[in-house]
Amino acid sequence: METLSSYVEGKWVEGADAGAELVNPATEEPLARASSTGVDLERALAFARERGGPALRALTFAERGALLERMSKVIFAERERLIELAIANGGNTRGDAKFDIDGATGTLMAYAELGRRLGEQRVMVDGAPFDIAGSRLQGWHVRAPRLGVAVHIGAFNFPAWGWAEKAAVALLAGMPVFTKPATSTALLAWHTLKLVIDAGLLPEGALGCLSGAAGDLLEHLGEQDVVAFTGGSATARKILSGESRISRGVHVNIEADSLNVALLLPSAGEAAFDAFIRDVHRDMTQKAGQKCTAIRRVLVPEADLARVRERLGAELARSVVGNPALEQVRIGPVATAAQRRDVLAGIARLREQTRVAWEAPDGLSPLGAPSGKGFFVAPLLLEAEDALAATHVHEHEVFGPVATLLPYDGTAEQAARIVRAGRGGLVASIYGDDRALLAAALESLGPWHGRLVLVDSKIAEKSVAPGTVLPNLLHGGPGRAGGGEELGGERGMALYQQRTAIQGNGPLIGRLLGVS
Amino acid sequence: METLSSYVEGKWVEGADAGAELVNPATEEPLARASSTGVDLERALAFARERGGPALRALTFAERGALLERMSKVIFAERERLIELAIANGGNTRGDAKFDIDGATGTLMAYAELGRRLGEQRVMVDGAPFDIAGSRLQGWHVRAPRLGVAVHIGAFNFPAWGWAEKAAVALLAGMPVFTKPATSTALLAWHTLKLVIDAGLLPEGALGCLSGAAGDLLEHLGEQDVVAFTGGSATARKILSGESRISRGVHVNIEADSLNVALLLPSAGEAAFDAFIRDVHRDMTQKAGQKCTAIRRVLVPEADLARVRERLGAELARSVVGNPALEQVRIGPVATAAQRRDVLAGIARLREQTRVAWEAPDGLSPLGAPSGKGFFVAPLLLEAEDALAATHVHEHEVFGPVATLLPYDGTAEQAARIVRAGRGGLVASIYGDDRALLAAALESLGPWHGRLVLVDSKIAEKSVAPGTVLPNLLHGGPGRAGGGEELGGERGMALYQQRTAIQGNGPLIGRLLGVS
Repeated sequence: METLSSYVEGKWVEGADAGAELVNPATEEPLARASSTGVDLERALAFARERGGPALRALTFAERGALLERMSKVIFAERERLIELAIANGGNTRGDAKFDIDGATGTLMAYAELGRRLGEQRVMVDGAPFDIAGSRLQGWHVRAPRLGVAVHIGAFNFPAWGWAEKAAVALLAGMPVFTKPATSTALLAWHTLKLVIDAGLLPEGALGCLSGAAGDLLEHLGEQDVVAFTGGSATARKILSGESRISRGVHVNIEADSLNVALLLPSAGEAAFDAFIRDVHRDMTQKAGQKCTAIRRVLVPEADLARVRERLGAELARSVVGNPALEQVRIGPVATAAQRRDVLAGIARLREQTRVAWEAPDGLSPLGAPSGKGFFVAPLLLEAEDALAATHVHEHEVFGPVATLLPYDGTAEQAARIVRAGRGGLVASIYGDDRALLAAALESLGPWHGRLVLVDSKIAEKSVAPGTVLPNLLHGGPGRAGGGEELGGERGMALYQQRTAIQGNGPLIGRLLGVS
Repeated sequence: METLSSYVEGKWVEGADAGAELVNPATEEPLARASSTGVDLERALAFARERGGPALRALTFAERGALLERMSKVIFAERERLIELAIANGGNTRGDAKFDIDGATGTLMAYAELGRRLGEQRVMVDGAPFDIAGSRLQGWHVRAPRLGVAVHIGAFNFPAWGWAEKAAVALLAGMPVFTKPATSTALLAWHTLKLVIDAGLLPEGALGCLSGAAGDLLEHLGEQDVVAFTGGSATARKILSGESRISRGVHVNIEADSLNVALLLPSAGEAAFDAFIRDVHRDMTQKAGQKCTAIRRVLVPEADLARVRERLGAELARSVVGNPALEQVRIGPVATAAQRRDVLAGIARLREQTRVAWEAPDGLSPLGAPSGKGFFVAPLLLEAEDALAATHVHEHEVFGPVATLLPYDGTAEQAARIVRAGRGGLVASIYGDDRALLAAALESLGPWHGRLVLVDSKIAEKSVAPGTVLPNLLHGGPGRAGGGEELGGERGMALYQQRTAIQGNGPLIGRLLGVS
């Protein structure tokens, strides 16, 4: 059994006790242990600030980007071995595993490319300088890296992409990263981090990691530090109301719960309709529905309900649940026993206000799992009689292979009312070809989401599924989703930068910044 | 005596009790009363959201900008009368009053101009669309107005500029505003608001105001609402830790305390040195030192200390304290009896660790004030022996005509250490001509500030003082200053907008948004 250590103050250290056990969620076989007990987090963070920060700030964007490219390549070179780890510890099918690992290497490469484009500067000039008075007195804005450390707290569902997408943005901005993956699925996170760290690509202090519990990590943060958190709303509340945020102004980004919507418009063309079925099905099955971007609420015009029920049911009936080490399995287990308890409790809650639209006729019999073992959940499609009356559907994120059909009258107004009941989300996808309805949906749903996916029949076949977070598009959403902004090319870098106005002698400012 | 009413649900309503008394701080003569008792804030906010929001969102940026221009003109037309109100209720000299009122009209005009430039759109396209795959599948980002209400809570020191600068940005973004000026100096705020509202320029619900206590204002806010607050850190903490922020993700911008720095570099040319003296003196006297951007900490190379002490002392000796209704008065009273108590307590605290560099030889004898009346504070220049040891100077914002000289060894490193002790500020101004030192100061002080003012000898004469907040430059700062971003042209509008990524059929997205 492996012991996952932490990388602090330039060395790998093991926790002082046995810590938590990581298992294979399909077989419950123990795989590794992780403990952070005894790790001096105050010193770990100080080391990142004092050693990693200056070293990264001395590099240009192009040089930081080159580091990201090498990180990506080091991970990619071990792709096959990492896929096996994801299958073992994450309950991932091979497809799920690739989605996570290739997401990590792809995002690192996308930010490497952005680094190349940002070039030989070390700070970013924000907008064009403008004249305040006369010929020399000008106003500039610059975005320079904050002088602290970026603390990243990841969710269990994307052990590779989760830390890599956050690190790519922070490192390119010029901030050192101290990352804490979720413990239950940390095997893949740890191996990818170890590959990168042991390759010695990065300046000392630029990347550290913590295996095990977060302990008092957040209590040591201050004005120049950043916390980027992905996970549940209970922890998000703790971070937002903690002293380091309230009194010391630590910069916080939250990605929390989201009851993402797929909205089918009336009279959608066949290609758009097919894409709708494909996306809902993918989000119910991929990673056993454990994606923050997964579709939970499926809005369907009343006239299309029967057809949707039938098509989705047929797709789900073909989706084998079982040990993801087997090639024919499409739906693995959820990540932990606690997750399964939560998902089953959530389903019970949803069922109080819904009926079953589709469930497996023979119940749950996972393929290739030891009898009675594994954290499996049967896929389930629910349906509400009255979309707005089914309040639990809009309030409770069930993080498993579950979605609910919500009938609506086909108008943009009613669709918007139903979507709004979710109080803000990461992504909504809209399928159809009626331009007036598309325009109305764009206007009414936009301010409630960080991302909209429009699927009309012309692009339906090549449309990228809403559950896929692209590095150059924003990831985050208002309200329940936490109000964060990650990725989006340069946009997510703002979290790691202080934007400062500079007024003075324009030509001199340009020379001092080294940009003219 | 006037009664200041509130504008809610499209009508002026008076509070149900006598409420708070507003006085002339130079004479203590009562001027007005303000009470919010009995005002139904939940309904007031709902009215803004439901009536004002849709009406504003239906306008283009150019149309919203045109409204701002008319608001500016309506206020400007009454400038002389408003100056008298500011002198009476604000303790303002005529110069102080103009600074506030012209700041209001000027900022409205600057955003009117920005509206013209943004033109015929109703949402903002953020960056260039890019290809995701093939020729049609694209990624866009748009910034659309949030669907709630912008609640603005102002500070007592800028009753006109305070609400107008916030309203200009929110209205241009397309959000309705509900504004609560600080009660003690609300006479000017109320008259400017009344001018604008009664002129009937704005759509119903686009601008409301509350006179008197805030009551449960913040408890009614949710996911699509915004709070922009300027004031002390105690209230800021309450806003940040309130349920509406923590659980419902209301969007918050804070401008709080700031121990702003003026940094004199060694061997500064005569013009830069003169500007340094001019700016420190202005910030100690203008508005009796009651500006959030006022210089509190004055870093001086040891070799220049005697000269600075002498020059500032001579300027202060000429600055008459008294009733600001008199033309020869340069320093009026502070705004309230409570403010004077706070300032005097703050001075006592600073004096524990500093000595007097200059004080009025004959003590305080305000010109033209009734004997024993008025909230006057004598200007005072303090000096620390050891800048870093004088910890109170870096922690305690004394909001009056007080500053402290802090000697340093002339190196950028020591200057940065001293500045950092303030834990983040709105603005730092740097005076000198040594390029290596200017570059080092820019790099080390930038991430600690929202704005830097560089004053080299070439532009020293026309340099705009650091205490003046320009509409096109960011206002806000990290850490102790609250982490906010206001103004800065389009930058401050982000608070009032949801940025949403849109992926789909590029040409179609352009048509749906009406931008291509």
